[in-house]
Amino acid sequence: MITILSGGTGTPKLIQGIKEIYPEEDITVIVNTVENEYFSGGYVAADCDTVMYTFADMIDDEFFYGIIGDTFKIRNILIEMGTTELLKIGDMDRAIKIQKTILLEEGKTLSEIVEHQKNKLGVKAKIIPMSDEDSEIKIITKEYGELKFHDFLIKHQCEAEVVEVQYSDVKPSSGLIQAIENADKIIIGPSNPITSIRPIIAIDGVEEALKEKEVIAVSPFLGEGAFSGPAAKFMNAFGFEASSIGVAELYKPFLKRFIIDTKDEKMKEEIEKIIPNVQTTNTFMKTLEDKINLAKFVLNE
Amino acid sequence: MITILSGGTGTPKLIQGIKEIYPEEDITVIVNTVENEYFSGGYVAADCDTVMYTFADMIDDEFFYGIIGDTFKIRNILIEMGTTELLKIGDMDRAIKIQKTILLEEGKTLSEIVEHQKNKLGVKAKIIPMSDEDSEIKIITKEYGELKFHDFLIKHQCEAEVVEVQYSDVKPSSGLIQAIENADKIIIGPSNPITSIRPIIAIDGVEEALKEKEVIAVSPFLGEGAFSGPAAKFMNAFGFEASSIGVAELYKPFLKRFIIDTKDEKMKEEIEKIIPNVQTTNTFMKTLEDKINLAKFVLNE
Repeated sequence: MITILSGGTGTPKLIQGIKEIYPEEDITVIVNTVENEYFSGGYVAADCDTVMYTFADMIDDEFFYGIIGDTFKIRNILIEMGTTELLKIGDMDRAIKIQKTILLEEGKTLSEIVEHQKNKLGVKAKIIPMSDEDSEIKIITKEYGELKFHDFLIKHQCEAEVVEVQYSDVKPSSGLIQAIENADKIIIGPSNPITSIRPIIAIDGVEEALKEKEVIAVSPFLGEGAFSGPAAKFMNAFGFEASSIGVAELYKPFLKRFIIDTKDEKMKEEIEKIIPNVQTTNTFMKTLEDKINLAKFVLNE
Repeated sequence: MITILSGGTGTPKLIQGIKEIYPEEDITVIVNTVENEYFSGGYVAADCDTVMYTFADMIDDEFFYGIIGDTFKIRNILIEMGTTELLKIGDMDRAIKIQKTILLEEGKTLSEIVEHQKNKLGVKAKIIPMSDEDSEIKIITKEYGELKFHDFLIKHQCEAEVVEVQYSDVKPSSGLIQAIENADKIIIGPSNPITSIRPIIAIDGVEEALKEKEVIAVSPFLGEGAFSGPAAKFMNAFGFEASSIGVAELYKPFLKRFIIDTKDEKMKEEIEKIIPNVQTTNTFMKTLEDKINLAKFVLNE
């Protein structure tokens, strides 16, 4: 039994490797929900969907967003009618979002909805949204003041300088703490530490539960650059160095084993002052083989 | 210049006839909005869309709802995923509703949105939602208490006994009163008098403006039965006889000419005590010829 803490891009890549070597029914993924929001009237739980599509082998893994081979009839009609949506939503992906909207309106929780949808898509892993409550993430920027996360990412292409990142306090979803307590190992994937992982560990009871467990993290950083997304800006805004050193400091209270890239061998000694157990391997996942190799390394298998 | 007061089924049939014999750019339609609501996260302005699709020759005129030849990809995925929407929404129709949702969120008014959409669809007639404010219609029934209009129509198939119909007071949209004042003739189509027409005439200033105009109404009733929809139940709930006599009483304060079906010739004398100018013709519109003939009769052309 393993439990994975996931955001939207780096960790799903690692999941593609893990699911090849570990029984899917023994995997639980706790997913960040802080970026969830209504968009064009539909409820978008982007990271939940990415993880769900990854297990269902439907993910468009060029972008780790949307469904491979999806059609764009609705989007194309909207464009013809003069409206270009900021998010590029395919028809099947939109149907998944519309179903969430309908079921939320009927009073179902996000956890219940994700459970229903992942079962319908034949996913055997458990997928647990970190919270069933609405939350909000705000990026306070120097140039534009307060921005919604999607506007920061897409409209402003991550170009603004980040002064602060704020997100709401939310209650854990009902299965969250148990998913940590029941796991033999907890894996924190190479997702954005500030916007994807920190919202999960900031939830009441999560850090305490993690302290009791074998927690293994894979750093999303390689030298000065993060693998994907605007991680560096966010790390700096929280006063952490934008490198594996900063990640080690952020995860220090509960981390037992830290995996960094071979190219960061030179930081190993310094990181070992923060986390004693540091290992190096290739963390850059391009091919399925890379993903499986990293998964084996993480799981010691 | 003519202005037509319209609901969702009977009047669009008449519009199909009128647009064949009258210059489209000289037609204005004021559309009931009291049934508008969010549905599956999308804003549904059913009567606005029906009128817009009718002018664009896109209407599915078997049901006067939706777009002819539309596909149902999203609906079918939802069904596969275990959710059957009460309204059967095609993909293009859904895109139109999603665009409304997006533009409302951006702060546009419903009037501005309908103007934009009808222009994109090549419609030359003016289409004016009666109000840009949200409104609500509640059907109070004996069996189930308070029902939403769509639930009454679709879920309960109009079978419940109607005790009362309630709808919100709303402000007129900016072009509404002017559309009445500028018209040479006002035509009240054969729509449900209670749920489609009365909400328009109940708006502040509308009845006063109608009193100054040549107002012509086509009765939706033929003998004891309305052409379509649950008009009889609603008429009774408001204390009006469910026939052309009841309609005459309802429209009496401003009606100048009333057109009833030839089969109701026997009621003509009694109706003339309410409205002096009553004419009979075939009001049953099955073929385009029926629709054109009735349009010619209404317009005296």
